[in-house]
Amino acid sequence: MTSVAHQLIASHLVSGEMVPGTEIGLRIDQTLTQDATGTLVMLELEAMGLDRARTDVSVQYVDHNLLQTDEKNADDHRFLRSACRRWGLWYSKPGNGVSHPTHMQRFGKPGATMVGSDSHTPAAGSLGMLAIGVGGLEVALAIAGNPLYLVMPEIWGVRLSGQLPEWVSAKDVILEMLRRHGVAGAKNRIIEYHGPGLAGLSAMDRHVIANMGAELGATTTVFPADDAVRAFLRAEGREDDFTEIRASDDAVYDAEDEIDLSTLEPLIARPSSPGNVVMVRAVAGEPIGQVVIGSSANPGLRDFAVAAAMVAGRQTADGVSFDVNPTSRELLMDLTKMGATFELLGAGARLHQSGCMGCIGMGQAPATATSSLRTMPRNFPGRSGVADDAVWLCSPETAAASALTGVITDPRDWAEAEGVAYPALALPERATVNTAMLEAPLPPSEAARVELIKGPNITALPELDALPAHLEAPVLLKVGDDISTDAISPAGARALPFRSNIPRMAEFVFDQLDPSYHERARAHEGPHVIVGGDNYGQGSSREHAAIAPRYLGLRVVIAKSFARIHWQNLANFGILALEFADPADYDRIEPGDVLTVEDLPEWLARTHEFDVRNVTRDRTFLVRHHLSPRQVEMVVAGGLIATLRAGA
Amino acid sequence: MTSVAHQLIASHLVSGEMVPGTEIGLRIDQTLTQDATGTLVMLELEAMGLDRARTDVSVQYVDHNLLQTDEKNADDHRFLRSACRRWGLWYSKPGNGVSHPTHMQRFGKPGATMVGSDSHTPAAGSLGMLAIGVGGLEVALAIAGNPLYLVMPEIWGVRLSGQLPEWVSAKDVILEMLRRHGVAGAKNRIIEYHGPGLAGLSAMDRHVIANMGAELGATTTVFPADDAVRAFLRAEGREDDFTEIRASDDAVYDAEDEIDLSTLEPLIARPSSPGNVVMVRAVAGEPIGQVVIGSSANPGLRDFAVAAAMVAGRQTADGVSFDVNPTSRELLMDLTKMGATFELLGAGARLHQSGCMGCIGMGQAPATATSSLRTMPRNFPGRSGVADDAVWLCSPETAAASALTGVITDPRDWAEAEGVAYPALALPERATVNTAMLEAPLPPSEAARVELIKGPNITALPELDALPAHLEAPVLLKVGDDISTDAISPAGARALPFRSNIPRMAEFVFDQLDPSYHERARAHEGPHVIVGGDNYGQGSSREHAAIAPRYLGLRVVIAKSFARIHWQNLANFGILALEFADPADYDRIEPGDVLTVEDLPEWLARTHEFDVRNVTRDRTFLVRHHLSPRQVEMVVAGGLIATLRAGA
Repeated sequence: MTSVAHQLIASHLVSGEMVPGTEIGLRIDQTLTQDATGTLVMLELEAMGLDRARTDVSVQYVDHNLLQTDEKNADDHRFLRSACRRWGLWYSKPGNGVSHPTHMQRFGKPGATMVGSDSHTPAAGSLGMLAIGVGGLEVALAIAGNPLYLVMPEIWGVRLSGQLPEWVSAKDVILEMLRRHGVAGAKNRIIEYHGPGLAGLSAMDRHVIANMGAELGATTTVFPADDAVRAFLRAEGREDDFTEIRASDDAVYDAEDEIDLSTLEPLIARPSSPGNVVMVRAVAGEPIGQVVIGSSANPGLRDFAVAAAMVAGRQTADGVSFDVNPTSRELLMDLTKMGATFELLGAGARLHQSGCMGCIGMGQAPATATSSLRTMPRNFPGRSGVADDAVWLCSPETAAASALTGVITDPRDWAEAEGVAYPALALPERATVNTAMLEAPLPPSEAARVELIKGPNITALPELDALPAHLEAPVLLKVGDDISTDAISPAGARALPFRSNIPRMAEFVFDQLDPSYHERARAHEGPHVIVGGDNYGQGSSREHAAIAPRYLGLRVVIAKSFARIHWQNLANFGILALEFADPADYDRIEPGDVLTVEDLPEWLARTHEFDVRNVTRDRTFLVRHHLSPRQVEMVVAGGLIATLRAGA
Repeated sequence: MTSVAHQLIASHLVSGEMVPGTEIGLRIDQTLTQDATGTLVMLELEAMGLDRARTDVSVQYVDHNLLQTDEKNADDHRFLRSACRRWGLWYSKPGNGVSHPTHMQRFGKPGATMVGSDSHTPAAGSLGMLAIGVGGLEVALAIAGNPLYLVMPEIWGVRLSGQLPEWVSAKDVILEMLRRHGVAGAKNRIIEYHGPGLAGLSAMDRHVIANMGAELGATTTVFPADDAVRAFLRAEGREDDFTEIRASDDAVYDAEDEIDLSTLEPLIARPSSPGNVVMVRAVAGEPIGQVVIGSSANPGLRDFAVAAAMVAGRQTADGVSFDVNPTSRELLMDLTKMGATFELLGAGARLHQSGCMGCIGMGQAPATATSSLRTMPRNFPGRSGVADDAVWLCSPETAAASALTGVITDPRDWAEAEGVAYPALALPERATVNTAMLEAPLPPSEAARVELIKGPNITALPELDALPAHLEAPVLLKVGDDISTDAISPAGARALPFRSNIPRMAEFVFDQLDPSYHERARAHEGPHVIVGGDNYGQGSSREHAAIAPRYLGLRVVIAKSFARIHWQNLANFGILALEFADPADYDRIEPGDVLTVEDLPEWLARTHEFDVRNVTRDRTFLVRHHLSPRQVEMVVAGGLIATLRAGA
């Protein structure tokens, strides 16, 4: 039982036992918030009446909403800065970089726990941290010193052996995991990589793999803190923060898998799911209009440097936009110092500011009916900003080769045709560390005097009432499998500026799938139900996907199964998540059907299974819930904020 | 009579005589279009049935709509590329740079004439070109080989003497012109700089001054082609394109002014007009939230290098966003090569892609109630994307000093306080020339087979009918002085994506000044009138400010006076521009008044002055028009496209 994951959990366990499927409580050392979810976190801290952050380290990054097409983004940045000053958080200015790699560089610490209001928070598992993506409200609670409650996951040991061949890199490892297991393959699991194959993977390579563990539905991903981690921290001038953490040789895992790295080849996720993985050679020749490198899924200096080395002295194809998103200022400074920025520009790169950019649909949308290759983690439909988009996910090597040829290209085939050897990269041993864009927490006496600066678009959280004693509600929407939180509450340049304004944000709910939903929900006025398929709410951690439909009257979602973070967010905002006991009942319910449950709160408190009556079809069906008693109380009260207010 | 301007006009004169106030026709050698105006130009070429461009050089740049928040921008880029391939134009890819400096670097040629569908086209006057900003339709005509018709302007000789002091640069020269003469001070004039002071101004310094001649309302600005121009072309590897063009010693100007450069000091334009110029010291200490360097108004390597040298090793103030917009890929490569990119990043710069960016309201909007300092040419209200914005215009030196202190700061005071000497810049003698992002025209046989690629947002030009024989129309809107084309048809991230879609574009017309105008105009259905003050239609060349209200039924604008390009655009789209013979009549007309003119086409053909009857107030007033017989015919027919179609 001495896996890395168990060691990390055991050292932070404050309640429960490490039995998969039961609720545990964990002490949280660090928090990470980004601007698209962080403004709600700060409004929640305000609602909770916090005086000062109680974590070791809490950092607010500004990396998502950087386009500033009107005053809203900049107003949010200003609000976040004032909130950091008020409550003793670190503030990372716009331009400093994407939260995950930047946090790893400046604050990541083996052995620490972290929650983040971003689903890619697990990337910090690359350093031997236990880092979990959650809804903003749970980050707010952690900032206030509360434990994180979650269902104890299984630990999935994935043994890596062998060495990656040339032209194959970390992205292909995680794409191989997605090829094997799909987008729900690691649900309720922590993935722990171990074995001799680790030796060839740098800490940033591991970041790539841990980051996109989110796409497998994993609770998180962990790696040991070994020499690669020590080398990384040394390069960042923080070797003192290193602690060795390794699994014991006899570590036991709840599940096991193995990848021989030497057998991998370049892989690519076809549109429009990270799970649609095929060999690059299987789709080679497909014309493309755009290539984007960057994002927290390929954030390392080597990821950009290898692309730069490939395109150096060459020119990207006519008709292809080659977009480069440096993941942090530090990285861009290092790239510039080593000459790679110059090479990228010479080859035709559009060099963008450091941040998430197109990964969250903030710009960089491709043209109509044009394939876009990206080194990003997600390609959910429409996330790029274009309704019928065709976004493919691949490694920097595949992206660079394709940018040069103008069609999807296996980098091995390009190298052979061009007579090019795999680039031997001379990366600097010490990073260009520059902390000047990180504003440190103010001393308490000064912080207490800071006033929050709220632009006109920043509104208070809505008041959420208790669950009705007798539920009677129509099904206003029925959706299929793998509905992402992007589908529920879209990102992108249209919607993201309203992240601090729930009434306006609500206008975008489900607008890709059913543009009438929002108005029908408002017109109905009473509570309503949504019916979903498998893996409902996969993807991003955004709690807007709960709070915005809740604002519109959503009180119950009945689905075949739920993704972890969204399930937790539903509970936090007083929306009851129920599973069909018999998945076949999904087919026996239609939009418009009216459902009833008498004495709903009592049923929830008493049992995990009960009947729902479909009045319209004159039948009943069995549903199941997985809420802990703590969560039942919370849902019945109308959500966590209501609970906290009642307790205050 | 041997000013540079007269030489340039005389060598291209195809009709008329060089008598100020009379119509002349000029042969046009080159054209420049950018994407925000270029899509209409290409639709116009299509409507005209062009086979192939007949100019020496026609270049389509993509620099305005780079954010790509949905498919529209990228669809426009693809459409423009296909149009360039079809008609034999050069295509400058997104990321290659802002049109004006890029054109100067790659195509600018002393002695040539150019029209551009961008009001800052006169920037090429820095090389001894006669470059004039016009509406897109006139560019389309020039591409098709037609002359440009314009009213022969006066030539305004501005003698420069002395040398600029340290910490004062070219931007302060043009701000001094604006301080002296205001935003209509050079109307119907060509500004020609001459004198010994020129020796200290590089070609790019002259670009700064020529560019913002547009803000003075000048027809264009010209400089001689002298050693500074030769040095510039040599650095660009194009010394062969140099021809010396100088005014004769006895050159006579229609008007004269003189600036002793040694007496200048750092100047700044207060919000919200380029004409609100004061000394930086007069407003020093004003807190700021943003500083942006870049744009075609300060596009030179020295403009960025001086800022980089000032901030090197220092850190921009907390709470200030320091945005850097490299004006071209070439510039960014040179900056990177000389180490300045590294210094800017180290000081906290947000480095953006090469393009216009915040200058045209595509991103970079400041926060609510926050001052933004920019090295850009314009600060019209709302152009930044924020309704009540506070945008200030200044030199790179003032911008950099203020970014460091967090308040508006005279760079001399900063230098004294810090003990800093004025940076001695070591600029490279040869630029990093890289033409790979410029796609050359296809050979005619290949071009003829190219099909235009139109995204779903790219619509055909509306059909425009003839002027009614008897006008009876209500005044739907009355506005004040100095109404810019930004106020008529806004730029920015909201509206710009619809530049190829007139019906949608029309929804934004006057929406800052009177959000009800658009719907009232549509509801009215028949023709209507707008009443304006002085300098109606100043600013950008966008013909959308004519075609979009025309689409809504605007047939007559009666104003105290008009800005040149917009006046021409009104005529081109069949809108009659009339001036009050007695400006006091402006006060005797109100929104809702119904105006009539019987036999309007006959009046126009017969005389330049006639009566308009205000039926509502039972009075008549005298108006005047300045249309040539050619233009009268065009306006009566409904506009230039109608004329061309009738002639075809």
